[in-house]
Amino acid sequence: MRKNVITGGAGFIAFNLAQRLLAAGETVIALDDLSRGKRDAVRKLETHPAFSFHQIDCSSSKDMIDLFGSVADITDVWHLAANSDIPAGIEDPTIDLERTFLTTVGTLAAIRVHKVPTLHFASSSAIYGDLGTRKIVEDIGPLEPISNYGAMKLASEAQIRAAVEAYLPRANIFRFPNVIGIPATHGVIMDFIAKLQETPTCLEVLGNGSQQKSYLHVDDLVNAMLHIADLPGKYLVYNIGPLDDGITVQEIAELVRNYVAPQAEIHYGTEPRGWVGDVPRFYYSVQKLAETGWSPRLGSHAAVKRSVIEIADQERQGTVTI
Amino acid sequence: MRKNVITGGAGFIAFNLAQRLLAAGETVIALDDLSRGKRDAVRKLETHPAFSFHQIDCSSSKDMIDLFGSVADITDVWHLAANSDIPAGIEDPTIDLERTFLTTVGTLAAIRVHKVPTLHFASSSAIYGDLGTRKIVEDIGPLEPISNYGAMKLASEAQIRAAVEAYLPRANIFRFPNVIGIPATHGVIMDFIAKLQETPTCLEVLGNGSQQKSYLHVDDLVNAMLHIADLPGKYLVYNIGPLDDGITVQEIAELVRNYVAPQAEIHYGTEPRGWVGDVPRFYYSVQKLAETGWSPRLGSHAAVKRSVIEIADQERQGTVTI
Repeated sequence: MRKNVITGGAGFIAFNLAQRLLAAGETVIALDDLSRGKRDAVRKLETHPAFSFHQIDCSSSKDMIDLFGSVADITDVWHLAANSDIPAGIEDPTIDLERTFLTTVGTLAAIRVHKVPTLHFASSSAIYGDLGTRKIVEDIGPLEPISNYGAMKLASEAQIRAAVEAYLPRANIFRFPNVIGIPATHGVIMDFIAKLQETPTCLEVLGNGSQQKSYLHVDDLVNAMLHIADLPGKYLVYNIGPLDDGITVQEIAELVRNYVAPQAEIHYGTEPRGWVGDVPRFYYSVQKLAETGWSPRLGSHAAVKRSVIEIADQERQGTVTI
Repeated sequence: MRKNVITGGAGFIAFNLAQRLLAAGETVIALDDLSRGKRDAVRKLETHPAFSFHQIDCSSSKDMIDLFGSVADITDVWHLAANSDIPAGIEDPTIDLERTFLTTVGTLAAIRVHKVPTLHFASSSAIYGDLGTRKIVEDIGPLEPISNYGAMKLASEAQIRAAVEAYLPRANIFRFPNVIGIPATHGVIMDFIAKLQETPTCLEVLGNGSQQKSYLHVDDLVNAMLHIADLPGKYLVYNIGPLDDGITVQEIAELVRNYVAPQAEIHYGTEPRGWVGDVPRFYYSVQKLAETGWSPRLGSHAAVKRSVIEIADQERQGTVTI
């Protein structure tokens, strides 16, 4: 039975992962600095006797080493802590340095001192940068991330790989796509809903709407993480995503509009990118993972459609409702 | 005419680069924390009116921003500052974090604030990790560095690539091989000479001597850097190295022994690797660079042979002699 630490433990994905681990009878220790995570979501989990929460800055090696020392026999660390606001990290590179990379450094320091056997890392499709129309398989090159977020996820992977060489018995690298569901804290669906709640007659979209991306529902993501965790290996790297090539921003805007404010007009920008560092189109291969027997329940379109309803309900109630 | 800042400006490669830039009539501002660089080497350059030296920790963004502000119109930054003791970085990951990566962060912060148009970065073949017998071309994947040094060089490349997307007009990424020559501060030739000076009858070699690596003489390296700097482009990535597949540690040991202490016996270890994170064999492609018209004057064997003489003379005199 695993004894799990989850960094970024008050975040969206952590909440869903923790629920699953607790349901399986495992122990979960969630760590978060609450800079973006939701304390509300954590309160819901705290009713479970095998769950505990600690407010901590995971980029502090000293604090992390001390905390791991106070919890005996950790078997698995799920390192999900990161800045999740990519455009903010373009404006200020220190955000991704500290929250996306130095949290990895702090986590590894504690893993090393306390000899934790397994690290699971939430990496990102952003490490690949803009590879045009090439099909993005795990061992593609060159790796040229075009956002600080992607750069600091790649830096984290590199540091973890070196740790596996030196002292870490096992690491699983999950390269996440866009993940949606609740309790949502950010993302394009939430942005569109917030804009329509403020101005129900009109939805302004950054970029010309042609950007196309893969979206995976968080339920499918957590299934994939747990599936990979059970595969044999010392250093596993997997893209996780839907089997399709994604959905356009225009389709997302229309799905949100149709559910939230059917009378609204949608106005698009002129640029193919929403912001600097945004990759307009992306062909993500999940074949390697599919070959191990995993498949998602929802494609990009179905995942967005379901998440629009879930997130709109969440926002209407002004609270986390899971 | 360039106005050049060189970080790691008291190091071995910086000394050679600075000499060449000064000889061409350019201005050189050398920055170094002197944690490993040699102040002696800098003193020799300080007699030149277009050279200046500042002792500074390049990982301090604030100090770097202030310093760049005190020097007007910098055109080129040559970012060479890094930990150069790779095994030390395996023992203590904070060394490469601070000296190899955070110096990049500090340098980029100053470049951004003061709008420097061009960054030249001393990356490393260590970013590739151990790719076995595959020919290592620049866009190969996956990138899985097995030392913290390699990881933090890859992290630096990633951060620079994201900077090019956001604010940096041009970056040249030089992926260095093993570079030799004087004024040497570290490396296998110096280690062997030091061992033989202490025990002239016997040379103990880490590993079984079969490790094979490419070596490039620093004169050829600087030629390559200046050659790439003149090529057109926004983000250029080049492997730099000799045209051959390298020389074994055994051959190096014999060249050093023959010159320094011909009567010494050489004793080898049993492991194919000298240390954790050492890549035993390495097929480095410099075809991309060769196609632009560059070629080195010395192959690995000739470069080692010449450097043994140069470094032995340097060590005999106990000072830098250029």
